[in-house]
Amino acid sequence: MMDQWVSFTIPYCDTDQMGFVHHSNYARYLEMARWEIFRRKGLPYRKVEEAGIYMPVIEMNHRFHKPLYYDDRIQIKVDIDLLSQTRLNFNYKIYNQHQELVHEAFTRLTFLKASNGRPCAIPANIRNMLQSCQILAD
Amino acid sequence: MMDQWVSFTIPYCDTDQMGFVHHSNYARYLEMARWEIFRRKGLPYRKVEEAGIYMPVIEMNHRFHKPLYYDDRIQIKVDIDLLSQTRLNFNYKIYNQHQELVHEAFTRLTFLKASNGRPCAIPANIRNMLQSCQILAD
Amino acid sequence: MMDQWVSFTIPYCDTDQMGFVHHSNYARYLEMARWEIFRRKGLPYRKVEEAGIYMPVIEMNHRFHKPLYYDDRIQIKVDIDLLSQTRLNFNYKIYNQHQELVHEAFTRLTFLKASNGRPCAIPANIRNMLQSCQILAD
Amino acid sequence: MMDQWVSFTIPYCDTDQMGFVHHSNYARYLEMARWEIFRRKGLPYRKVEEAGIYMPVIEMNHRFHKPLYYDDRIQIKVDIDLLSQTRLNFNYKIYNQHQELVHEAFTRLTFLKASNGRPCAIPANIRNMLQSCQILAD
Repeated sequence: MMDQWVSFTIPYCDTDQMGFVHHSNYARYLEMARWEIFRRKGLPYRKVEEAGIYMPVIEMNHRFHKPLYYDDRIQIKVDIDLLSQTRLNFNYKIYNQHQELVHEAFTRLTFLKASNGRPCAIPANIRNMLQSCQILAD
Repeated sequence: MMDQWVSFTIPYCDTDQMGFVHHSNYARYLEMARWEIFRRKGLPYRKVEEAGIYMPVIEMNHRFHKPLYYDDRIQIKVDIDLLSQTRLNFNYKIYNQHQELVHEAFTRLTFLKASNGRPCAIPANIRNMLQSCQILAD
Repeated sequence: MMDQWVSFTIPYCDTDQMGFVHHSNYARYLEMARWEIFRRKGLPYRKVEEAGIYMPVIEMNHRFHKPLYYDDRIQIKVDIDLLSQTRLNFNYKIYNQHQELVHEAFTRLTFLKASNGRPCAIPANIRNMLQSCQILAD
Repeated sequence: MMDQWVSFTIPYCDTDQMGFVHHSNYARYLEMARWEIFRRKGLPYRKVEEAGIYMPVIEMNHRFHKPLYYDDRIQIKVDIDLLSQTRLNFNYKIYNQHQELVHEAFTRLTFLKASNGRPCAIPANIRNMLQSCQILAD
């Protein structure tokens, strides 16, 4: 429905002794990318939590095609491809500065009430925000 | 072919402001668990790299069934379920101290020559080590 | 007043492309060590927070004498050397498996009420716990 | 001798269950800030390592004045205040979006030959780069 690009430079601390970016860091890149897009659309994730809703990751898949290196300049393409009453899916493609596809990933997020940790449907105020910023079709 | 259990206590730094373990930390738990098993079988991963071989993760899937919390005592069940000439697959189940299945994961690792970063078949010395410690059937 | 030893094996993800443990990881080792000692003394840090108190770090100093490497087996000596009404100081020495002193560190922690984030004196129930487990002299 | 400002938005994964940024993350912010300044001066740290030199941290001090929170927009002021033949000192001040001084830090870095891990004086090519980009006075 919409896709957006976020760019990012790999910090030194993310490397491991193979000389590659350690695979545990990609989850953080995906998180930064999706909330950056929420911010651009006028809905910083901070506001979601301030409205009493948590959006934890309940599924995450990674395919590592090529290594990333320190100081690589990456471009992350984020697709939000489906929204049920209780699920939001994100697809990601990461490209390096040589326009090579280095990584593909998927995350599924759900909605919890912060007050009791229980799953919930998208609250009306969140839904309105998602619609008004075109993340969710009417 | 073989399964093994590794236990671990969740450190404080792994929590996030939801009060849960942040999803980016599970990759590290899986890594600690698989190399702990290699160590028990007499093949510390350190020796693999000393033999000139890297074993990077090329695929990783997570399903988060229930949150983990600070100070939880987890049990990680690791299964090594398939070995081709170039791939080693691991399946993981994480249980909390209440014997609840909180997480399921899969990682696929490959073999690279450290000298040139190229994929390679399992070198004879590594294969022998894997067979002698019953990770790989003859 | 009391010192205790905690041991720990360095995980792979903590290395960087120099082949050393990245300096950002030591803060986590110190945290694991101090709360492990609290646990042994009968006061898991989890119970401190359940009593409505946070103990954030307000000062931390590191001196890196020698590198640590993947799979090193470290021993962390923790000293709790002073307790004011509002401050708890910890000194740490980290030794590797060759009995070399590789790191010295200091952390100062304070007490906050979780309800309002304000500094507070040690609450009576926390003080009693600290005294009964000999972290604090009567 | 020179000071520079680097800005940065706090990612979600850096929070802990107190709702603050966990203290272990600041080391990474400092590292990103100092190498960003090296880059601006025409000397990406990557090139230092390509020239066969490592610059590990040998001392690091933190004072945490106020908490940082998710989504805070921080400004890091970096001062490079002294250069001996074998040491480079950095002082840092971190401000939040309310212009409050939240953190002060110091790191001391040294020079190692990558080939043997031994301390070394600043190699001529590195010194020239530092001088030409005004990090080091002639």
